[in-house]
Amino acid sequence: MNIPQITIPRVVIIGGGFAGIQLAKKLAKQEVQVVMLDKHNYHTFQPLLYQVSTGGLEPDSIAYPIRKILSRFPNFYFRLANVTRIDPEAKKLETNIGPLKYDYLVLATGSKTNFFGNKEIELNSMIMKTVPEALNLRSLILQNFEKALLTDSLDEQDALMNFVIVGGGPTGVELAGALAEIKKGILPKDYPDLDTRRAQINIVQSSDRVLDGMSEVASRKAEEFLEKMGVNIWKDTLVTGYDGDIVSTNSELTFRTATMIWAAGVEGALIDGLKTSECLLPGNRLKVNEFLQVSHYKNIFAIGDIACMTSEDYPRGHPMVAQVAMQQGRNLGDNLLKILENKTDLKPFVYKDKGTMATIGRNKAVVDLPSWKFQGFFAWFVWMFVHLLSLIGFRNRAIVFVNWVYNYIRFDRAARLIIRPYKKETRSKDVKVVAK
Amino acid sequence: MNIPQITIPRVVIIGGGFAGIQLAKKLAKQEVQVVMLDKHNYHTFQPLLYQVSTGGLEPDSIAYPIRKILSRFPNFYFRLANVTRIDPEAKKLETNIGPLKYDYLVLATGSKTNFFGNKEIELNSMIMKTVPEALNLRSLILQNFEKALLTDSLDEQDALMNFVIVGGGPTGVELAGALAEIKKGILPKDYPDLDTRRAQINIVQSSDRVLDGMSEVASRKAEEFLEKMGVNIWKDTLVTGYDGDIVSTNSELTFRTATMIWAAGVEGALIDGLKTSECLLPGNRLKVNEFLQVSHYKNIFAIGDIACMTSEDYPRGHPMVAQVAMQQGRNLGDNLLKILENKTDLKPFVYKDKGTMATIGRNKAVVDLPSWKFQGFFAWFVWMFVHLLSLIGFRNRAIVFVNWVYNYIRFDRAARLIIRPYKKETRSKDVKVVAK
Repeated sequence: MNIPQITIPRVVIIGGGFAGIQLAKKLAKQEVQVVMLDKHNYHTFQPLLYQVSTGGLEPDSIAYPIRKILSRFPNFYFRLANVTRIDPEAKKLETNIGPLKYDYLVLATGSKTNFFGNKEIELNSMIMKTVPEALNLRSLILQNFEKALLTDSLDEQDALMNFVIVGGGPTGVELAGALAEIKKGILPKDYPDLDTRRAQINIVQSSDRVLDGMSEVASRKAEEFLEKMGVNIWKDTLVTGYDGDIVSTNSELTFRTATMIWAAGVEGALIDGLKTSECLLPGNRLKVNEFLQVSHYKNIFAIGDIACMTSEDYPRGHPMVAQVAMQQGRNLGDNLLKILENKTDLKPFVYKDKGTMATIGRNKAVVDLPSWKFQGFFAWFVWMFVHLLSLIGFRNRAIVFVNWVYNYIRFDRAARLIIRPYKKETRSKDVKVVAK
Repeated sequence: MNIPQITIPRVVIIGGGFAGIQLAKKLAKQEVQVVMLDKHNYHTFQPLLYQVSTGGLEPDSIAYPIRKILSRFPNFYFRLANVTRIDPEAKKLETNIGPLKYDYLVLATGSKTNFFGNKEIELNSMIMKTVPEALNLRSLILQNFEKALLTDSLDEQDALMNFVIVGGGPTGVELAGALAEIKKGILPKDYPDLDTRRAQINIVQSSDRVLDGMSEVASRKAEEFLEKMGVNIWKDTLVTGYDGDIVSTNSELTFRTATMIWAAGVEGALIDGLKTSECLLPGNRLKVNEFLQVSHYKNIFAIGDIACMTSEDYPRGHPMVAQVAMQQGRNLGDNLLKILENKTDLKPFVYKDKGTMATIGRNKAVVDLPSWKFQGFFAWFVWMFVHLLSLIGFRNRAIVFVNWVYNYIRFDRAARLIIRPYKKETRSKDVKVVAK
């Protein structure tokens, strides 16, 4: 992998997400060689992926080159690599670009979509965890409307204009809201020769309320917003299958749709090689202690979605959100520096919950702060402000801001472009697309 | 194709480029049904594609949804379609979404890359006529540098960091300038563990000067700028082959490179079915008369790059540039309205040359106006101003402006993202890419 072997210890971080970046920043100026490996050469600001899918933001505005974040630090090395195996005995990684030894290993690999073993759903549904996936969804939505124009069959048109979102968490709710706004503001203008009023947006939620990780008042208000915007919410319903045409559920309810979006669950993005039987918790997350050390391994740590630290307050681990990941990255950074200096006064990780929020549409968001819950216009304003400031880099903030102002004033989403058409049948193995 | 058959005449425009859009705007409010067909659902602002390839602009900023430009007009229909054949006898088109009858047909299909029959070059070189092609080039450039890190072979590193641009027209010159700026400002920071000073940027030009469509002073100054920026210019040299590794020429000169960009020629993007033997001129352009009527066909017109109207001033047809296309679109619009009203006072097309310009780098451009030729900072400023205003849509202008200000102040190009990795071996048939 052509990384110089030097005398100072080497920390290898797998993953340039929220957790990995924070950790690397802590370590970068210290007497330690930091190697970051990621499948992409950019950091993805996942909370805004749904705006890419719905043409509100350009993909490049929520991605940021990892090299740019960290390359000014002298001991930092980045490699575009896919890690295939960890060999904890030999302290070695296997990757698609060759092996790499480590002194300390940090897994910050995040999470991936969990289909709960349902191959049919995996094959036919759309997901939205990466920029290319978000762009595929954008293409498919637009292609469906172009296709709907070509048929006289109302049934077929309805299926092409029907959206079934499985999962009523923040991703599902935010996507549904954005689709509802497109239906209202864009479709009638773009497709005057199509009765777009018949387009349907459905959220199918397994529990008895959407946003069930937030407060009950937030859920209630979010449902109210969604219903006002014309989104159908189906609660206490489990999706059991999707053959590319019909969505089946555990009740008699079925949907005919060309687009099912699966946002119903994630699991840790594991890498082979660890004694997983001994450190794996439900959801494929790695069990870590209060110092984010993976069970049974002294020099392997996990941070972010992949890590699961159970405590009295969080018996099933922390929520898999950016805030936890960032705080864990910073905590581990401080502790690792102490470990490297042979100090023993490590600081256990304690999550400081700053609150959660979700946006449903223009002037409509819900915010749960530890001491204050509020909804509506002000919540929406806070949501925008927080997300804008959380983006990395001045350029990305400026571009997103311009887009948001434009979208708000013009009721528009200008990036409705089919740059690379999406071909459904090829989705199975590694998501192939054909460029025109 | 599900387009209503009504009593007013139907004009079918193939292509939503500069020419097609201008024509459609002229016709849109009139008593005529306008159907536009395009392979993409967006208009591409091609003059800025090289900035997408080099990470300076986001692809979505130079693309604009065709539906958004024209859908507010009641008699306008857009279909995403690939026209495969024209049947002039039956006044009918064959497309991938079914047949379509026309009363008047306008070919505004533009041009495509001309490889002059060299299959090897077609297979192995990169081109830059569409947004996906520009993005493929962006990915390949970045992937090459990531790869160069992994090898100890200086030869291989040099090949990965060597860029050979064939063609010294505006595309080649502007791309070379952008690459030179990346080499100077970005590479040393992003790849500190690579000796990026060894990166080479070459322009191979068949004639005795770059920008040979412009004035001699513009060429001389452009060459001076390029050389100052470290670009190697090879004049009077024809590239004869490229096997993916070695570029051969008509002299003893060869280059070893992983990236050859072919910007050496375009030809009309023809569609089967016309008596082409009788209306085809060199470069596969359709011969049109002064009313842009295709030879031998009363109700078929051609505008933009595909059209070739020879005159005393332009014995080989007009230059294949946006200005000609836009003026032809507007001219044909006026004439078609007259034809529809059975008027005979058609206005022959006369090209009003407003000048040409090309930019080489920051503060460096060349401008030829009919009565004034100038170069340097002011030319660069004029270039930016004209291109900014020529973009369609307020949002695109605002975003491009923010990006340019940012790039200028920070000497940066933030969109250096490998969103979809480019796989060279699959380039042959219809440019397949694999998304991660």
